Amino acid sequence: MSSARAESSLQVYVVRYGPGSELLGSLQAFVKERQLKAPFIMTCVGSVTSAKLRLANATATNLNEIIQLSGRYEIVSLVGTLNPDAHLHICLSDSKGKTVGGHVMGNLQIFTTAEVVIGEAVDLQLTREMDNITGFPELVVQPHP
Amino acid sequence: MSSARAESSLQVYVVRYGPGSELLGSLQAFVKERQLKAPFIMTCVGSVTSAKLRLANATATNLNEIIQLSGRYEIVSLVGTLNPDAHLHICLSDSKGKTVGGHVMGNLQIFTTAEVVIGEAVDLQLTREMDNITGFPELVVQPHP
Amino acid sequence: MSSARAESSLQVYVVRYGPGSELLGSLQAFVKERQLKAPFIMTCVGSVTSAKLRLANATATNLNEIIQLSGRYEIVSLVGTLNPDAHLHICLSDSKGKTVGGHVMGNLQIFTTAEVVIGEAVDLQLTREMDNITGFPELVVQPHP
Repeated sequence: MSSARAESSLQVYVVRYGPGSELLGSLQAFVKERQLKAPFIMTCVGSVTSAKLRLANATATNLNEIIQLSGRYEIVSLVGTLNPDAHLHICLSDSKGKTVGGHVMGNLQIFTTAEVVIGEAVDLQLTREMDNITGFPELVVQPHP
Repeated sequence: MSSARAESSLQVYVVRYGPGSELLGSLQAFVKERQLKAPFIMTCVGSVTSAKLRLANATATNLNEIIQLSGRYEIVSLVGTLNPDAHLHICLSDSKGKTVGGHVMGNLQIFTTAEVVIGEAVDLQLTREMDNITGFPELVVQPHP
Repeated sequence: MSSARAESSLQVYVVRYGPGSELLGSLQAFVKERQLKAPFIMTCVGSVTSAKLRLANATATNLNEIIQLSGRYEIVSLVGTLNPDAHLHICLSDSKGKTVGGHVMGNLQIFTTAEVVIGEAVDLQLTREMDNITGFPELVVQPHP
């Protein structure tokens, strides 16, 4: 559990992306532009017309449990960290109110809007190291150098 | 993308509303009473006995994709911004664990409790301006005057 | 509505738990170890292989609406407060993207990872008092002594 020096103050950023933007790429570009070291999603409200999601059954050796959604969806949850690789999970609701969720692979084309509050733990630096148990590069929390 | 000066410090508020309160109106009253300028939902846990939701198929010219839910629901997600008009999406789970989600129109009658943490980006002011592309008043992020 | 003195600054903690940890117990241990007084979930992304959830129909006199989930699930939402008793709701997505939600009772065995940002409202103290209307110990927000 890598939380030995996990404490930090916080800076927040509020952004809005409009139709035609892709949400995952927009968030990654924002993190890069502002050189954020420990950014994460605080809240996100909006709508998309597509999504590429990896489902719960995927493992490091079985990554092909992926679905491509197309249609109008409300973002009812977006969670996770943004650095150095975004690790985001999303829950979307459709025209019947039915929900679908998974790991964000991309293609989150914005329908009307996406309002996002990003938190930056200014005293920390988030990195990733290969975890031999999971087979994925997993989060490492360190003090900001 | 209206994030030119999106950076801010944060103040937080923790509130609890009990049975008989309506959650959307209670949050709007809190924002008005405290004169918050850039408030948003950080977390919310609780339960409701009703909800009025707009579904994902709605557009500015087709606003009648609305459902009225009645029954006991757990709030498993509440996301969005609270100023000047609340833009909230919610995900609710029913007595079978099944979830339903959409845009909050109101009528969130609290069953037992709603515990909410509200963030206020103290250096920012959130407003809304009509977006001709979407047909909705969309979020504008500005420095606090 | 117990928000008379609800305003606070914020400290954040970023932690990661790996395979073999149980998420609810790990969060409770972290809160105890750091002696946090007003902690809550800011974001959580990860996956579990099991969950014990109380469903929406439960009341103080009918607590047995509980399900035990087993299988691979993505955490697509985790909300709530952590002190003095954790009051958490969760939304999980399965291998088809289908979601299930409810009140966290425990048994959140981590599959690959759980990345969590915890907020601590440093000027507040969260406690619980029996609410005769709901029959549950409900949140009370007070200034930190």
